[in-house]
Amino acid sequence: MSNHVVIMAGGIGSRFWPMSTPEYPKQFIDVLGCGKTLIQMTVERFAPICSYENMWVVTSALYVDIVKHQLPQLPAENILPEPAARNTAPCIAYACWKIKTRDADANIVVSPSDALVLDEPEYRRVINLALDFTAKSDTIVTIGIKPSRPETGYGYVYAENSDEGQELRKVSSFKEKPDYQTAEKYVADGNYLWNAGIFVWNVKTITDAMRKYAPQIASIMDEMSSDFDTPMESATVTLLFPTCEKISIDYAVMEKAEHIYTIPGTFGWSDLGSWGSLRINSEMDEKGNATIGSDVHMFECEGCVVRTSSLKKVILQGLDGYIIAEKDGSLLVCRLSEEQRIKEFTV
Amino acid sequence: MSNHVVIMAGGIGSRFWPMSTPEYPKQFIDVLGCGKTLIQMTVERFAPICSYENMWVVTSALYVDIVKHQLPQLPAENILPEPAARNTAPCIAYACWKIKTRDADANIVVSPSDALVLDEPEYRRVINLALDFTAKSDTIVTIGIKPSRPETGYGYVYAENSDEGQELRKVSSFKEKPDYQTAEKYVADGNYLWNAGIFVWNVKTITDAMRKYAPQIASIMDEMSSDFDTPMESATVTLLFPTCEKISIDYAVMEKAEHIYTIPGTFGWSDLGSWGSLRINSEMDEKGNATIGSDVHMFECEGCVVRTSSLKKVILQGLDGYIIAEKDGSLLVCRLSEEQRIKEFTV
Repeated sequence: MSNHVVIMAGGIGSRFWPMSTPEYPKQFIDVLGCGKTLIQMTVERFAPICSYENMWVVTSALYVDIVKHQLPQLPAENILPEPAARNTAPCIAYACWKIKTRDADANIVVSPSDALVLDEPEYRRVINLALDFTAKSDTIVTIGIKPSRPETGYGYVYAENSDEGQELRKVSSFKEKPDYQTAEKYVADGNYLWNAGIFVWNVKTITDAMRKYAPQIASIMDEMSSDFDTPMESATVTLLFPTCEKISIDYAVMEKAEHIYTIPGTFGWSDLGSWGSLRINSEMDEKGNATIGSDVHMFECEGCVVRTSSLKKVILQGLDGYIIAEKDGSLLVCRLSEEQRIKEFTV
Repeated sequence: MSNHVVIMAGGIGSRFWPMSTPEYPKQFIDVLGCGKTLIQMTVERFAPICSYENMWVVTSALYVDIVKHQLPQLPAENILPEPAARNTAPCIAYACWKIKTRDADANIVVSPSDALVLDEPEYRRVINLALDFTAKSDTIVTIGIKPSRPETGYGYVYAENSDEGQELRKVSSFKEKPDYQTAEKYVADGNYLWNAGIFVWNVKTITDAMRKYAPQIASIMDEMSSDFDTPMESATVTLLFPTCEKISIDYAVMEKAEHIYTIPGTFGWSDLGSWGSLRINSEMDEKGNATIGSDVHMFECEGCVVRTSSLKKVILQGLDGYIIAEKDGSLLVCRLSEEQRIKEFTV
C-alpha cells in the first residue's frame, strides 16, 4: 500500500485579521517568522513519509494560485479546488474519491494545513504507527494530543485503556469543545485527548464509512468521480460539489463509525488557532512579547504579540497583553483577552 | 506706522512623532483635521491686521519650500531661512532687522506658527490694542493668557494691577515653567498669566532693546544688514547668523527690559504643545477620543488621540488614554501620560 497525504487548506483565517485575510489566509503566511508558511511546513513535515506525487491539497478555488506558488513541488493536478466551502466531510470525501480513482490501495493521512508540530520525528513515528495499523485493518485512527492544559478551544476524544505497551487505544466517545470546568475534569481524568483533526485510514475504509454514514455525500462523489481525469471534471465538480451537505467529518463520520482508534501524541502540537497560541508558540523576549516586524521598539510592554509587515518603524509603550498587528495598511490593536471578538470588529 | 507680522516657524516638532517629523514638522500639518495647516491658520488669523507683503516667516532653510508651497500669498523674499537654529532671540532679531531695512517705522507682532486661537476676532482686538499702544510708545507688549488650569508646560508673567478699565498692565516679572504646586498658586493668585510667546513692539524699540541687552546679536545683525537686499545676502547670513548666541528672547531681552506690558487674553489659546492638548482642542466623541484617519473603528476606547494618514483601516480595542499615531509607515502607540518621553523613544 502506498501512502497519500491530504492537506485541508480551505480556512479563511478570520481570527487573525489583518495578518490573515480572506484573500490571503493564515495557512499561507509565515506566522512564526521562520521563513516558511504554515502549509509549506506541513508539506515538509510529511515529505519523509509520502512522495509529493501522493500529496493532495484541498482548498478554495480562490487559493489555488497561492498553493501552486508556495508548493511548486506538488503536481498541479493534486491541488483540488472546492467550488464552495462545505466544511470538512465533503472536502475529505473529494480528496479520498480522487485518490481512489488513482490508487485503490491507498493508505491516507488527512491533516490541517495550519497546525504547528514541534517534534517532527516523533510526529512521523506516530503517523507511521497509525499507517501501519490502517494498512492492515478496516479502522480509523484519529491522532490525539495529550492535553497540557484545560483548553476550551479544542474538541476531545476519550481513549479507553489498552494493554500495557500498546500505543493504539480505542476511542469510545467524541466530546465537543467543553467549558473550562469540564476541560479541567478531562485533563484530570487522563484518558481524554485533544482532537487534532488528523485522521489516518485506508481509502476503502473511508469511502465505505462515507457510504454508510454520509450517503448523500458519497453518492455525489460517485457521480463526480465518473468525470474525474476527463475534460468534464472541473465543470462537474463546480456543479455537484456545492450540493453536498455542509457538515464536519466529526459529525458525519467519526461520531457514528465503529473501530476508531487513537494514539496519544506528545510531539508538541498547536493548531495556532488564536493570537494567544501564536504568541506562546513564537520566540518571546524576556517580557513575553512575541514580535515580528521591522524596527519594532517596545517600552514597558508585556505579553504582547506583534506582527507588522508594511510598517517601517514601530514604537510601542505601555501595552500589557495586546495584539498589535498590521498588514497592507490595516492595523489592529486589541487586548489578547478580547481576541475572540476580532471577527465582530472587522465586519 | 504700518503693521508687520513675524511668524516663527523653525520648530522641529519632535514631540509629535510620527505625525510630525523633522522633515515635516507640526506647524506644516493639519493637526486638527480642519483642512488647513497650523501655519496657514496663523497667517489667515493675521490677514485682517496686516497685508501679506508685510508678513514674514522665519524658518529653517530646510522648510523654505514647504512654506512657499503652503503660503503662496506671501512674497518669497519675506521667507527668511535660518542657516542654523539659534533659538528665538536671533530669529526675531533677523526678522526685525530685515523689517527695519524696509520700513523704519514698522509696528511689529511676533507670533509662533503653531498655536491655536479659538476666538479670532477677540484675538485681533487684543493685538490691535497692543499695536495702538506700541505705535505711540517705546514699550514691549507680551500677550498674556488668563490661565484656565495650573499648567506646568508654560512660562508665566506677573501682571501688576492697573487702573480700572485699563486692559494694559505692567509686567513685573517672568516665571519659568513652574511645578504643579507653584502653578496652582499662580492660578489662585489671579495676576499670573501664561506667556504665549506673542510679542508686540515697534521696530525701534526692539532693535534698541537688542543693542542694549543682547549686543552680540545686535552687532551681528548690523553686519548682516549691510548686505540685505544685495546678491551677497544669502552668503552673509549663512556665514554670520550661526555665530549668534543661542538664546531665547525671554532670557535675552524680556527678563531684562523695562517698560514691558501685557494684555490678559481670553480668546481661547493653546500652543498645541502636547498630544494631550491636541486631544482637548480637537473634536472628541462621547468617550473623549479625538480621531483623524480613514476608516478608524474603536471599541471600548476612551480618552485616546488617534492620527493616521497612510493606514487604510484601523481597529482599536480596549485602549484607555493612549496616543495612536501613524504616518508614512511609522507607528506610535503610547500612553498619553508618557508622552514627554516620545523624544527619548525615537532616538
